[in-house]
Amino acid sequence: MAKELTPRSEDYSQWYNDLVIKADLAENSAVRGCMVIKPYGYAIWEKMQRELDRMFKETGHVNAYFPLFIPKSFLSKEADHVEGFAKECAVVTHYRLKTNPDGSGVVVDPEAKLEEELIVRPTSETIIWNTYKNWIQSYRDLPILCNQWANVVRWEMRTRLFLRTAEFLWQEGHTAHETYEEAEAEAQKMLKVYGDFVENFMAVPVIKGVKSATERFAGAVDTYTIEALMQDGKALQSGTSHFLGQNFAKAFDVQFQTREGKLDYVWATSWGVSTRLMGALIMSHSDDNGLVLPPNLAPIQVVIIPIAAKKLTDDMKAKIDAIIANLKALGISVKYDDADSKTPGWKFAEYELKGVPVRLTVGPRDFENGTIEVARRDTLTKENVSMDGIENYVKNLLDEIQKNIFQKALNYRNSMIKKVDTYEEFKVEIEKGGFILAHWDGTAETEAKVKEDTKATIRCVPFDTYLDDDKEPGKCMVTGKPSKCRVLFARAY
Amino acid sequence: MAKELTPRSEDYSQWYNDLVIKADLAENSAVRGCMVIKPYGYAIWEKMQRELDRMFKETGHVNAYFPLFIPKSFLSKEADHVEGFAKECAVVTHYRLKTNPDGSGVVVDPEAKLEEELIVRPTSETIIWNTYKNWIQSYRDLPILCNQWANVVRWEMRTRLFLRTAEFLWQEGHTAHETYEEAEAEAQKMLKVYGDFVENFMAVPVIKGVKSATERFAGAVDTYTIEALMQDGKALQSGTSHFLGQNFAKAFDVQFQTREGKLDYVWATSWGVSTRLMGALIMSHSDDNGLVLPPNLAPIQVVIIPIAAKKLTDDMKAKIDAIIANLKALGISVKYDDADSKTPGWKFAEYELKGVPVRLTVGPRDFENGTIEVARRDTLTKENVSMDGIENYVKNLLDEIQKNIFQKALNYRNSMIKKVDTYEEFKVEIEKGGFILAHWDGTAETEAKVKEDTKATIRCVPFDTYLDDDKEPGKCMVTGKPSKCRVLFARAY
Repeated sequence: MAKELTPRSEDYSQWYNDLVIKADLAENSAVRGCMVIKPYGYAIWEKMQRELDRMFKETGHVNAYFPLFIPKSFLSKEADHVEGFAKECAVVTHYRLKTNPDGSGVVVDPEAKLEEELIVRPTSETIIWNTYKNWIQSYRDLPILCNQWANVVRWEMRTRLFLRTAEFLWQEGHTAHETYEEAEAEAQKMLKVYGDFVENFMAVPVIKGVKSATERFAGAVDTYTIEALMQDGKALQSGTSHFLGQNFAKAFDVQFQTREGKLDYVWATSWGVSTRLMGALIMSHSDDNGLVLPPNLAPIQVVIIPIAAKKLTDDMKAKIDAIIANLKALGISVKYDDADSKTPGWKFAEYELKGVPVRLTVGPRDFENGTIEVARRDTLTKENVSMDGIENYVKNLLDEIQKNIFQKALNYRNSMIKKVDTYEEFKVEIEKGGFILAHWDGTAETEAKVKEDTKATIRCVPFDTYLDDDKEPGKCMVTGKPSKCRVLFARAY
Repeated sequence: MAKELTPRSEDYSQWYNDLVIKADLAENSAVRGCMVIKPYGYAIWEKMQRELDRMFKETGHVNAYFPLFIPKSFLSKEADHVEGFAKECAVVTHYRLKTNPDGSGVVVDPEAKLEEELIVRPTSETIIWNTYKNWIQSYRDLPILCNQWANVVRWEMRTRLFLRTAEFLWQEGHTAHETYEEAEAEAQKMLKVYGDFVENFMAVPVIKGVKSATERFAGAVDTYTIEALMQDGKALQSGTSHFLGQNFAKAFDVQFQTREGKLDYVWATSWGVSTRLMGALIMSHSDDNGLVLPPNLAPIQVVIIPIAAKKLTDDMKAKIDAIIANLKALGISVKYDDADSKTPGWKFAEYELKGVPVRLTVGPRDFENGTIEVARRDTLTKENVSMDGIENYVKNLLDEIQKNIFQKALNYRNSMIKKVDTYEEFKVEIEKGGFILAHWDGTAETEAKVKEDTKATIRCVPFDTYLDDDKEPGKCMVTGKPSKCRVLFARAY
């Protein structure tokens, strides 16, 4: 048990770091703030990508690819956007190195200075809207429904694997529409796609809502968000979808001829999720033994470990092979680990650490009894199951585990939504973690004061109702001024 | 016919540029040398990726992700590597912009200068071997068989869409092994995977071989290559696989404990193909009417265009729907284009331009006759086929088209392999394009002279035999010195 993790109760943050490293998900690289995503972590990300990509295509989107670099001047074209993104970015100033005159390595060639610096994209609205300008003349060219899978760079000072890294992987959708209504509906539709993905595949319940002006994407008219709650009571913004209005069309002068023969600026959305979702996945379900992966995203759904493998007869091996083949035929990913360099006990701990949802162990004695031991990763329970029909049993069990993991996270999340009416109470409750629904006067000043006093931010104004009086007017817990409805506060990652 | 292309006979280079733009594959961006890959072009690239990724996984490889940035000092650690890659690269020197004191936009913040400059990866051997150092202690940690899908940047002065761009997309495999033999076999295996992919999916025949020292990858012991021939008689290097020996292990001090308990440096390979393959695909098969896509990579394999669509009865429409459903059930991607804003003639030209392999047209008269008109993109021929069983007919036709496109390219390529024994003859023949098999004395000087005189380079020393005396010794056509075997010359992209 060399891979023991710091228990969550002792230090949640250290538990997370331990887990990411020890489960071989990712590690820090030699480049400050940039991570290496290791094969096991990347395999989970690939499964996320595949599902999301399928959902994007089913909703009519196509993939494309836009440049990594953005001319510096582009960032300035949308006033809010430059404020949000220009501050922390990687700037390319030269295009050549040369041998150091003193013979020691290479140095930047001062003669190869770019006329205009290039920014490594922190997000691609500017370069894409500069491109769309040439694609759009008339309403017949609309809508444009593009998505891009890409890497982006934001120069973060304090980084954490998956949660906040200088370079991260993501997808960014960028759509162009004829009307306000159509763009607005698109932004909402993609928020729903994100919610469905996070709940059904990641088994993480989310609260959907709209951001306050302060928390809005730089350049958006409205930012919609899905907010998840981690086991330590902190919120994690898991995906955002932005209604951009005509802001970028105006900044890049993208006009089109309407059905009525007039000229108008194009309406836009953008939406993205990133490798940050890996952090949400890890922190929502895992325990002190390691990862707990929902079957829908587990690279290995079932591991089979033979006991006393040397005593298995050829008939027994043939039976195991048949079970493996049958499981695979049901679309289940199976790993058979008969490596004799490790003990069964070591393997049990290893696959627990890796979050494999179902473990089957089978030895000569099981063949006598006609059973197989089935262990669930989510509940850590074991039972002996008849070998006959084990394949369908496992298939159903995987479905049950997927549901159970979600339900457990949902029960926890719901137990952590509190209604608070006074600022005094708020300051006490926020220390306990979780979501707080409270009244707010709608001003950035009050929002800033709450953040300053308590480190809590407004996660969103939820669309759905979680309490009996969510949507009723009230008085701001801080200033006593009128409030239209309760908003969702939490400390967040 | 607004989308007419420059004929190949008139200006092959312009034909290529026209085609890439007019078929909506890619376009130049606002950033010098960086392209935008448009949705139709990206859909083809996605199909390439999916097949390659499957082939990599079937041969035991896993995906991972390494940083975009490489510390400048890393490039200098392998002496040949820095010569090959440090000269043209994007250099990040700063990590912040600030508002220009004069209020006009943003400028680089001089206070945010990096201590060590970062290079945008031109290839990832250095950052990956710096990472592998921590992953490898013993032979038990080997082999490592990682692949990465990523963007890379090489600051090219003269760029062409897909063929040579500053930023391009690719995959790079990086493997680590216990022995010389195992690494060498891996490099060969992946060359074979590339050859299989290019021939079976892209329908482009390739010549496999080993590069001369001059053309070798910077840092490799041997570079293996697949070389294709474009319709203008120029060669295009379509994929390379490198046996890196212990060069990078030594540069990054990656040693392991062998089975014998000794310490040794790890053996390495790397291998990659890029969006350059899109250029090879386009130039190998297409004609003056537009793209010709092999069915195995066509985003739309079959387009169905109704004639006199308004006269189609509900029964007729139901029959068409059934055909579409049956084709899809056979795994065929189908587009039904009944848009009434365009004429059938316009659509015919458009789908020809886009290279859709099979076009079905169906109108009220066809239902009377019980036939459908089937047009092949590769031969531009049409025939009327019975509506009954049309689905299997189309399925078989797609297979036939795939084979025919390959055979046509193979016949052309084979007709363009010439045997030359004198330098005078070489200078005449090279003007006609194609591959030339000739004797060479093995020196870099002679190779340089041939390039200087004729712009031709040694594409490879082929593994297979293409003439009766390929592998027999002879005399260098330039110097008359001894030559072990003929080598393959061509002018190349």
